[in-house]
Amino acid sequence: MGVYVDGVGMVPFGKHPQRSLVSLMVEAAHKALRKSRRPEVEALFVGAMNPEEFTGEGNVAAAVADALELAGLPSIRVETASSSGAAALVAGFYAVASGSYSSVLVVAGEKMTHLPTPRVTRILAEVIESYERNSGASMVALAAMVTQAYAHKWGVGHKRLEKTLCRIALKNHHNGVFNPYAQFRKEITEEQYFNSRMISYPLRLYDCAPITDGAAAVVITREEGDVKITGVGQGSDTLAVRHRVHLHSFAACRTAAVRAYAMAQRGPKDVNLAEVHDAFTCFEIIGAEDLGLLEEGKGWKAVDKGKTDVGGEIPINPSGGLKARGHPVGASGLAQVVEIVWQLRGEVDPRLHVKGARVGLLHSIGGLANNNTVVILERTDAPPHHVPLESPYGKSVEIERHHRPDPSRVSKEGVLDAYTVLYVPPEGFPSPLVLGMITTYSGHRILARAAAPTTFKVGERVVVAKEEDTFYFMRYGFTQKVVFRVSRILKGWKLKLKRRIRS
Amino acid sequence: MGVYVDGVGMVPFGKHPQRSLVSLMVEAAHKALRKSRRPEVEALFVGAMNPEEFTGEGNVAAAVADALELAGLPSIRVETASSSGAAALVAGFYAVASGSYSSVLVVAGEKMTHLPTPRVTRILAEVIESYERNSGASMVALAAMVTQAYAHKWGVGHKRLEKTLCRIALKNHHNGVFNPYAQFRKEITEEQYFNSRMISYPLRLYDCAPITDGAAAVVITREEGDVKITGVGQGSDTLAVRHRVHLHSFAACRTAAVRAYAMAQRGPKDVNLAEVHDAFTCFEIIGAEDLGLLEEGKGWKAVDKGKTDVGGEIPINPSGGLKARGHPVGASGLAQVVEIVWQLRGEVDPRLHVKGARVGLLHSIGGLANNNTVVILERTDAPPHHVPLESPYGKSVEIERHHRPDPSRVSKEGVLDAYTVLYVPPEGFPSPLVLGMITTYSGHRILARAAAPTTFKVGERVVVAKEEDTFYFMRYGFTQKVVFRVSRILKGWKLKLKRRIRS
Repeated sequence: MGVYVDGVGMVPFGKHPQRSLVSLMVEAAHKALRKSRRPEVEALFVGAMNPEEFTGEGNVAAAVADALELAGLPSIRVETASSSGAAALVAGFYAVASGSYSSVLVVAGEKMTHLPTPRVTRILAEVIESYERNSGASMVALAAMVTQAYAHKWGVGHKRLEKTLCRIALKNHHNGVFNPYAQFRKEITEEQYFNSRMISYPLRLYDCAPITDGAAAVVITREEGDVKITGVGQGSDTLAVRHRVHLHSFAACRTAAVRAYAMAQRGPKDVNLAEVHDAFTCFEIIGAEDLGLLEEGKGWKAVDKGKTDVGGEIPINPSGGLKARGHPVGASGLAQVVEIVWQLRGEVDPRLHVKGARVGLLHSIGGLANNNTVVILERTDAPPHHVPLESPYGKSVEIERHHRPDPSRVSKEGVLDAYTVLYVPPEGFPSPLVLGMITTYSGHRILARAAAPTTFKVGERVVVAKEEDTFYFMRYGFTQKVVFRVSRILKGWKLKLKRRIRS
Repeated sequence: MGVYVDGVGMVPFGKHPQRSLVSLMVEAAHKALRKSRRPEVEALFVGAMNPEEFTGEGNVAAAVADALELAGLPSIRVETASSSGAAALVAGFYAVASGSYSSVLVVAGEKMTHLPTPRVTRILAEVIESYERNSGASMVALAAMVTQAYAHKWGVGHKRLEKTLCRIALKNHHNGVFNPYAQFRKEITEEQYFNSRMISYPLRLYDCAPITDGAAAVVITREEGDVKITGVGQGSDTLAVRHRVHLHSFAACRTAAVRAYAMAQRGPKDVNLAEVHDAFTCFEIIGAEDLGLLEEGKGWKAVDKGKTDVGGEIPINPSGGLKARGHPVGASGLAQVVEIVWQLRGEVDPRLHVKGARVGLLHSIGGLANNNTVVILERTDAPPHHVPLESPYGKSVEIERHHRPDPSRVSKEGVLDAYTVLYVPPEGFPSPLVLGMITTYSGHRILARAAAPTTFKVGERVVVAKEEDTFYFMRYGFTQKVVFRVSRILKGWKLKLKRRIRS
């Protein structure tokens, strides 16, 4: 049984100081319902990440149904951190596909800008695994380490990396100019980018999606229409980033993509445009590679060559993405659906329109790629897939897991997989805060703080020490070498001494 | 395509000071998976009401998948306030019924007891509509007014009402004695009940479900088994209780019941036992009437006669209900599923077993009956329904809505529909706090505070005044009559004077 998209709607993203979360969702829903051939929906699926803490109001599913004067209808809230909007679409998709409803309204939103930034950061950080959060890792710090790991893995030098990240920011801001729903509607220059504040090395302010209020809505139905949902896929990953074998790509995204492609009977080559979760610029390249839209390890080159521009081979984020459209966390995934549908229907600004697009894909990341969703949308006149299905990762993705560290056995030396210098650390931490991901020679992956704010090279040898619950690391330089050896010898003597006293 | 229940599991409800929410969910899930013939689940549906504020940790869907070593699998969290556990089952049901998965794990939990009671009360109150919350209404205060409205509607005198509520508390505590998963496993006496503290008149401490930690898990599958999910139904209602025409019953429950009965092709007479959401004792009667299990307006008599006891005509809450098993808000709905399945499989203590039960029903309330779920579970050897389907409320329930008050036009007199004396009011309010629901002669329903803590009679005439954002009410006694008339006359004079000055 096919599931089709009927009306879609969105409120302009940005700051809405006078509006409540529910009123934003209601406006988006009314827009979608007005555009629908079947506005008599039978149930609601509501996506929101954390309305309780952002707005102090719970029960959001019932509140939205009531405010829409649809009290009585079943209304379910869905949450998967920052991919909640996309997950709400998926839950609604299952409900329609099961035959339980012929038409449901999916609506998603978040209200964030009324709170001070440190408070928003603190609320967002609740999705981070507790040890990593307590070590001072915020979302941007983890994203910065992922960015470094990507660059190290594929041999992208610092200058090249900076240039590529800048290119993505510029492209998405450029696209945002023509999107009336975008929070930022002005170009930025290379100069502005490089002058923007370093938040967490190598990520600058312009590498991070902003704090935003917004809502989006989609009516999905069993009745045949012009746009069909042909593939949905989801995948989760370890809560802790350090528990993952690979830091440079996201297994949860690959898993979601494999499932969505298989359901749609499509491969990456069929996709004409994509909305990719660019909460941080580098995530756009990593996402596009995970989706198979860009070649693994060469995504950054493709971006530099303009392949992902609106007129390029595979336009990515013609809407301006999370970077320029804004990122109301629970709404972003559903906003991506709306943008793709507008593209497939040709209802976007001609300067953003991907001509002849028939198959669109969206990719939404929950948390630090803990819970990702991929959805494939097609015009019903899209040609079928002719060559054998080429999913880039075969039939499934194995989630490989690092040993969970057993602190007593972690060896004292290791290799630095990634690090970041965080200039806006969480409350209670010194600035700058240097954090590193280290694979110890005992095979454990640990997240550690630098003992001193020196500079490091990814891949270098480091020394690790534990004090109370926190791991610290430092360079394996000459001094460290001596200190380390001496402390070892002393420890050996201490042990021998103890044994002698006992015997 | 049928959806069946495979393994089920639960952790003993109560206080688990050393345990995290995720570890409770994992334990319940492991129990369910160990009991399953198909433990290779393909997705997770996670029910929790507010883990962010109760535990400070978000991203619960990914966290549970990871902790179960199932990272990779799709994992969706579902929230509908205190019915989240039941709603997670429904979302999982749709996913399996859609053919997307052959087997999914539904797991739900909440961790609450580590926080001080006022903080728990404040978090729970976030589901209340903001005006009512800001007027001092907590969940128990609203429930107390609903209880009063029920008693008034059906002419149940105060003494009779007290006796009935006591009867429910005693019955559920009695059942809890034999349930190894219950938080309270001892009988209470009438004396204890009547000596327990009045929380919000007429509800005492023993009328309220406790604060609890707990988790439950259910594996559902397409593969034919011994217990089938034959009906699921959901219904929402106005967020504000005062916006409802009827205070004495819950339209959201009737809506959910109509849908579940219709899907299952069953009527209330087919049901052999039910788990009903008794967060407050009176909700058990109202719920049973809304479900058509007890005759409307006569539920309290049926309870007095023992019809709802384990050996009665229609046993309700043989598990001890929320009252004795405990009420970890997000887990309760799924715990009800587990209890029904155990009953249908004969896996409960013989003293609680409802002999020959083949059809069980559960009823879960979200918020103050804003978002309710009803699920019907049957043994596959249950006889089909032979007489024409008798859903007690026909094919649908209309949600009638009171006019939303336009403060400028609210008339100054009205009828008291219900009131309560709240002895543990929210921070910043005096104790006791008297709250009333009033239908004014202009047709508005308002929630008001008594100007003085006097006693009232439901149905009596009251005078209403507004000061800043709060409505106050007082008895329409002789003094009030005089004051009211005099103030009116004075106002008239003032107006006349003004006009004279102008002209």
